[in-house]
Amino acid sequence: MSIFDAFEKTPANHTPLTPLSFIKRAALMFPDHDAVIYGDRRYTWSQTYARSCQLAAALANHGIRRGDTVAVLCANTPEMVESHFGIPMSGAVLNSINTRLDADTISYILDHGEAKAFIVDAELAPQAAQAVAGRDILIIDVADLQDNPNPNRIGTIDYADFVASGDANAAWEMPADEWDAIALNYTSGSTGRPKGVVYHHRGAHLMASSTIMDWGLPRHVKYLYVVPLFHCNGWCHGWAMAAIAGTIVCTRAVTPAVIYDAIDQHKITHFGGAPIVLGMILNADDADRKPFDYTVNVLTAGAPPPAAVLEGIEKLGFDVTQVYGLTESYGHTVMCSYKDEWNTLNTTDRANIKARQGAAMVAIDGLRVIDDKGNDVPEDGETIGEIVMRGNTVMKGYLKNPDATAKAFDNGWFHSEDLAVMHPNGYVQIKDRLKDIIISGGENISSVEIEGTLHRHPAVSLAAVVAMADDKWGEVPCAFIELKEGASATEDEIIDFCREHLAGFKRPKHVVFGELPKTATGKIQKFELRASLG
Amino acid sequence: MSIFDAFEKTPANHTPLTPLSFIKRAALMFPDHDAVIYGDRRYTWSQTYARSCQLAAALANHGIRRGDTVAVLCANTPEMVESHFGIPMSGAVLNSINTRLDADTISYILDHGEAKAFIVDAELAPQAAQAVAGRDILIIDVADLQDNPNPNRIGTIDYADFVASGDANAAWEMPADEWDAIALNYTSGSTGRPKGVVYHHRGAHLMASSTIMDWGLPRHVKYLYVVPLFHCNGWCHGWAMAAIAGTIVCTRAVTPAVIYDAIDQHKITHFGGAPIVLGMILNADDADRKPFDYTVNVLTAGAPPPAAVLEGIEKLGFDVTQVYGLTESYGHTVMCSYKDEWNTLNTTDRANIKARQGAAMVAIDGLRVIDDKGNDVPEDGETIGEIVMRGNTVMKGYLKNPDATAKAFDNGWFHSEDLAVMHPNGYVQIKDRLKDIIISGGENISSVEIEGTLHRHPAVSLAAVVAMADDKWGEVPCAFIELKEGASATEDEIIDFCREHLAGFKRPKHVVFGELPKTATGKIQKFELRASLG
Repeated sequence: MSIFDAFEKTPANHTPLTPLSFIKRAALMFPDHDAVIYGDRRYTWSQTYARSCQLAAALANHGIRRGDTVAVLCANTPEMVESHFGIPMSGAVLNSINTRLDADTISYILDHGEAKAFIVDAELAPQAAQAVAGRDILIIDVADLQDNPNPNRIGTIDYADFVASGDANAAWEMPADEWDAIALNYTSGSTGRPKGVVYHHRGAHLMASSTIMDWGLPRHVKYLYVVPLFHCNGWCHGWAMAAIAGTIVCTRAVTPAVIYDAIDQHKITHFGGAPIVLGMILNADDADRKPFDYTVNVLTAGAPPPAAVLEGIEKLGFDVTQVYGLTESYGHTVMCSYKDEWNTLNTTDRANIKARQGAAMVAIDGLRVIDDKGNDVPEDGETIGEIVMRGNTVMKGYLKNPDATAKAFDNGWFHSEDLAVMHPNGYVQIKDRLKDIIISGGENISSVEIEGTLHRHPAVSLAAVVAMADDKWGEVPCAFIELKEGASATEDEIIDFCREHLAGFKRPKHVVFGELPKTATGKIQKFELRASLG
Repeated sequence: MSIFDAFEKTPANHTPLTPLSFIKRAALMFPDHDAVIYGDRRYTWSQTYARSCQLAAALANHGIRRGDTVAVLCANTPEMVESHFGIPMSGAVLNSINTRLDADTISYILDHGEAKAFIVDAELAPQAAQAVAGRDILIIDVADLQDNPNPNRIGTIDYADFVASGDANAAWEMPADEWDAIALNYTSGSTGRPKGVVYHHRGAHLMASSTIMDWGLPRHVKYLYVVPLFHCNGWCHGWAMAAIAGTIVCTRAVTPAVIYDAIDQHKITHFGGAPIVLGMILNADDADRKPFDYTVNVLTAGAPPPAAVLEGIEKLGFDVTQVYGLTESYGHTVMCSYKDEWNTLNTTDRANIKARQGAAMVAIDGLRVIDDKGNDVPEDGETIGEIVMRGNTVMKGYLKNPDATAKAFDNGWFHSEDLAVMHPNGYVQIKDRLKDIIISGGENISSVEIEGTLHRHPAVSLAAVVAMADDKWGEVPCAFIELKEGASATEDEIIDFCREHLAGFKRPKHVVFGELPKTATGKIQKFELRASLG
């Protein structure tokens, strides 16, 4: 017993960490500063805060209570940003659903997450309508700016009316405990059905502050929301913007013209995006380009961008920082933080180093690459092991799946199932994925899922899917197929079959017929298939 | 019961917040980057980390255990920086003592804090020797760089040998709980014996990250340690530097020449200091000045700097940000964060606004100015009330003083005993300490307001105003003034000047010329001025 053990926590000296404190403060200190811009719509921090309060109040009026789930299927619009504040302010948990999913998977997620309300963007209403068929759920329709009234309405109330019905001055409470859930994000379902990853307020707060510290974000940055907000809550950047009273520029489409126009019009200083976005900028038509005389800072994650792409885009005025993370880690938790000694490298060598994933961000307490006995691999940049990490920006766990949670947290570390090497000073580089995830245009595609579909085709005897390099998408799925004896199928038939049974972006872009290489025990040797793609 | 309530905290997803994680990470990621520079001595982050680990190990070898107190009486040297890491790494609590205190008060603090070890700077050994007389305590002597062997040694072991005796690779543990104490800082004891303010790891971590976010500190800043590290642990800036792998330049003396030399030699980008330091720079001899072609960022706290001083120093290339805080709040928790709309103001108006204390920093959840019934005063910039706050950077409490702790945390808010007005948008402006307000003929007069006016007089270098007993009015203001070198002014001239710029009843009725008594941190000791009035 120490003399220092006598103190109890009080409301004066112990308050829950939450990103909700950020928006309250931004609205107080910088009420008139632009918070969200979307086309002709502009909201200040005071307005965004008021609208979020109204959303929270309206949800409460409709019976939403602490710990309920509110699902969202939306593009990156002001409504999506407001949902990131208003839904947690109501005490509910935000379940932002990947807009590219098919109706069946959306339906599964609504069931599994027990969503009590569902905010649906007009553009995404058709697949949402299928998913909610026959379901008792409060649907709030978001009309796009051009379309009012909303021709795609599938519920009974429009978001605008719903928000207007809420009292901006209604009391809302900070979470009782910073460990309370704030968001539910489903994985891409590499081994069957997607898993529900639960985030807490503490983690979301620390993820935002960690990004600000490690990416070096000053107050009032101009941020273009290229990363979908349904991806790990847009890497938690919306919450970070509230902490520094930044300006979020929303966009429904991501094209070179949109990015250059935003830079030109809004003086965008920062954005995050998949490597595909970098390629897009690099290969933009001259007509779409606009000059700018400052550096635009870009975070990129997913399949490491080729050094040539990094090198090319930096010449255009973009400073790219590679990050790595998973749904389970609130997005990026590893960042390739720049080191001054790289200044002396030539451009190509520097680009190669900058294409590494990097070292643990400030919110992560431990990042290791371990062998199958749980020992650290040497820091030699060669020995492959599994990335494991621990820290406050690791999920609470998988919803209703204690076995998967226990497995993921085995031995007190979160197991990423990603394979990497460790370079000196804690910088990791991804080499492969334990489960052969294909990262296409920033989306994770499970080869296992595509193989499952292929195996349902009547002519297919055996199928294996691996990633094939693609200039536009980074990676696309390539299927290798052994046909049944006497059966026949064309590449187009196989691709069409997949399109019918899978989200469109998951279909193989290329099909190779022939005998598959196998081990003595009959296991398909995927590394040989990859090698055959050159 | 919600579906989200099922998760337990594990070592994978819940780790204690502590500034110790910062140095571990800095040493891993930026091992060769300069951490601490002091004269000819230079330590990288890897070296500073190793030396801190050695200090922790040596303390453990000498029987220091979790929750023990280790006192430090040191100037801003590398040893002082290392103590801020090594002592908490040993599990002990760092009690950094004000170097200007008399032996009797130091002795009281060593008793009250139950210090088991005492690290003493050679320069401060005489008063430490008196304080420890007859005491059973492990004394570790710090020799200054020039003096080895140390002629002032009062113990049996030198710091250098002590550190060398510790194993740099010995295991040390993160705090078991982020609520564990990290530091013990005594108040200046304006009303009797000093009180022991206890900080915890969580607060120290959040104080550092809050400073980085709100002051906008990028990685690798060059920081000159002007603020004494015994003052609220140097505003927790040493811990912040570890989070962003900055470089700390130590200095034993604070003079205009030291500051300009450090800017010239080390390209200092940031420092914090009392307003007296600003005045020092403003009034520096031309011979001490050195040119620089970038902006040096300065935090200043304590008595609000007169607008005239702010205005003058900004013209020299320093960007000054006013902050406010107390020992009880880890130093600054309120910052005068700049608002773009101030750009349109003239220099004097802008300086006046920048002399306000500001709004709550990101780690503080609530900042209010309340009347004596506990209600918020209007945001009118006029109505005076007491500043209260709540948040994670408020102390655990006062050591062995539950009554004072309970009183300070009355009603769930920390009571500052500082009087202020609330301007719009949460910006507060200090008007006085509760005990410094002058009540004259029933009117409240702010001594700070009179001081601001006095500082605009061309002959005045430094001014302080206190209440003087008066038969007719109860109290009247009395001004104490240090004149600029070579300048002169009479009492009548000063009073007339005030009458022109202030309401008549606020003018000082009496003026005393001479040097003002100051604390170690440059704070004017008003109690001495009051005492001089008899």
